Amino acid sequence: MNYKTENIKQLIVKKPLKLECGKTIKDFPLAYETYGKLNNKKDNAILIFHALTGDQFASGTNPITKREGWWDTAVGPNKAINTNKYFVICANVLGGCMGSFGPKEINTDTNEPFGLNFPVITIKDMVAAQETLLDHFEIKKLLCVLGGSMGGMQVLQFCASFPDRTFSAIPIACSSSHSAQNIALNELARQAIMADPEWNKGNYNKTKNLPKNGLAVARMAGHISYLSESGLQEKFGRKLQEKADYEFSFDADFQVESYLRHQGYSFVERFDANSYLYITRAMDYFDLSRQYKNGLTEAFKGQKTKFLIISFSSDWLYPTKQSKDIVIALNASGANVAFAEIKTDKGHDSFLVNEPKFLNTIKGFIDSSYEVYSK
Amino acid sequence: MNYKTENIKQLIVKKPLKLECGKTIKDFPLAYETYGKLNNKKDNAILIFHALTGDQFASGTNPITKREGWWDTAVGPNKAINTNKYFVICANVLGGCMGSFGPKEINTDTNEPFGLNFPVITIKDMVAAQETLLDHFEIKKLLCVLGGSMGGMQVLQFCASFPDRTFSAIPIACSSSHSAQNIALNELARQAIMADPEWNKGNYNKTKNLPKNGLAVARMAGHISYLSESGLQEKFGRKLQEKADYEFSFDADFQVESYLRHQGYSFVERFDANSYLYITRAMDYFDLSRQYKNGLTEAFKGQKTKFLIISFSSDWLYPTKQSKDIVIALNASGANVAFAEIKTDKGHDSFLVNEPKFLNTIKGFIDSSYEVYSK
Repeated sequence: MNYKTENIKQLIVKKPLKLECGKTIKDFPLAYETYGKLNNKKDNAILIFHALTGDQFASGTNPITKREGWWDTAVGPNKAINTNKYFVICANVLGGCMGSFGPKEINTDTNEPFGLNFPVITIKDMVAAQETLLDHFEIKKLLCVLGGSMGGMQVLQFCASFPDRTFSAIPIACSSSHSAQNIALNELARQAIMADPEWNKGNYNKTKNLPKNGLAVARMAGHISYLSESGLQEKFGRKLQEKADYEFSFDADFQVESYLRHQGYSFVERFDANSYLYITRAMDYFDLSRQYKNGLTEAFKGQKTKFLIISFSSDWLYPTKQSKDIVIALNASGANVAFAEIKTDKGHDSFLVNEPKFLNTIKGFIDSSYEVYSK
Repeated sequence: MNYKTENIKQLIVKKPLKLECGKTIKDFPLAYETYGKLNNKKDNAILIFHALTGDQFASGTNPITKREGWWDTAVGPNKAINTNKYFVICANVLGGCMGSFGPKEINTDTNEPFGLNFPVITIKDMVAAQETLLDHFEIKKLLCVLGGSMGGMQVLQFCASFPDRTFSAIPIACSSSHSAQNIALNELARQAIMADPEWNKGNYNKTKNLPKNGLAVARMAGHISYLSESGLQEKFGRKLQEKADYEFSFDADFQVESYLRHQGYSFVERFDANSYLYITRAMDYFDLSRQYKNGLTEAFKGQKTKFLIISFSSDWLYPTKQSKDIVIALNASGANVAFAEIKTDKGHDSFLVNEPKFLNTIKGFIDSSYEVYSK
């Protein structure tokens, strides 16, 4: 979790940003990474939005965690989002923990991390912060904005907030507002974190003991929701963990138990518990239709952006129905919209793994968008 | 959790019971309750098996918790399981915490609760213990065994272990073996409990502080899995908790958050954390096909029992597919089997709520079974 700042590019956003909660922030850091080269016409820029636990390091090796970038399957030279051709920008969201302004940053008034004194942020706030990157790079209009899960919510919000700043948009495996089940799953995660006495009402910096157990349990809950029932069955079934028979104990007898524990406890090395609270809260508060008197259709009214909505057949966290509701609203607003449900058993995580049907779909859409846009 | 024993009927099982883990137990208590009257021919007896967090108090008011019995919707005078007509027995499972032999009982060797020194038990062990009730009541053959969720697993195991001791059987919303997702959800719950420092490796009796937070989080995870996405949406949607707007905090803004917290923290008043570990373990270990060289079909070979398998369309914890797999195996073994998928949006919990299509189905099946059996 500690990193050398030389590995992190930061834009200091000078312009005051009035957050939805009412507070105003300014002179705050926004950490970002770029891949590929901005061309002279500045018409080949793509902005990628990350999901709950992602960061700015989409491609290649993450210099902080030394692990593969979270979207290395999709972003890189000659990949679906081809960095030989396009200039890709990805920023750590507001509230995050990889160098952007978030609860683990130091409050200069107190010389302590903000913790729960950090303002509650929203998807709209995240997107408003990232729009400043366009001015920084002097990009008038992006070729494409895209992202999955919470990244998809940011795509929708970006298009609603800044209808003239992107040519095309791909919201993937997302929703225009969190369902009761989505909120319940996030609340379960928050309760797991807050139940950990080491969380200490968010002031774990004072005790130096991190709420590892609570955050690990939160992550385990997340992981179950990212995979489909059939995908889990295919991958693990009832396979035992290097043993011929049940041990009749509470150790990890089944491979799926050991997998979950590993996912939970390796996550705490790279993520901040308070960031998990803030970002899940932003997702739960997201309800694009609530921002407009006449709902979702009004949110997209007059859109010239070319949309491709993508869902995955086995995603039970953001089921296809939620994507179809977005398609209906976009059509009702007269927008240019295509829709693809990708058949796969890889669940919500399908956008993060090597799923050729999906990767070919976004590649085709981005490349053909560029052909039109660059003319 | 503390109760007067005068409210609990206990059978002391004298006969040694060799558990699947290898240990043998004897002279152990099995708590049970009965409803209705056993007739002279002793052919009107029904054995009900409870689910993970149930107990012997299926009908009327639970004398310990003062809450409604867990299956009061189905069991009582003139209800689907009509106690004016039938003699209904229900026992607290081995490993439970309502008077049966479980981890919170006192180990007479140490004068302390067993905690994790309690032997790991299985569904087969639970059923073997409850079969002793038939001898106790001098019932040769039950009219019916039934139960939902883990209760349904006990039904399957009872029929396999004691093929001649029931005329009919209704496994409801269950599976013949836990899927990887089922195991993962239980492991999430166990990890939440074991992450609570008050759990103290199961020895919370020594500190007198119960692992309430961990158990509450486990229960919240359970609750999400018991309801369907559409049921949650219908019931809660994005309704706010007595407020007109977001509070931009981590309090329960949404009704579904407040509901979950309530479900979690009220549960800890009535349930033992170690019992939760043992019973979920028994569910995960359950794999009826594993007990027979030739799998599930062999488990049911030669069955004369009349089966009705019931699933619920919106149950994602034990989806209809798992029930259909049982139907296939029963058919392959030449058993007498009927199957009904009840269309409902009430999810896995459908068997516990007032769902008329379901209640009419079990009523019709039990009554017509009795007409044949009592002839």
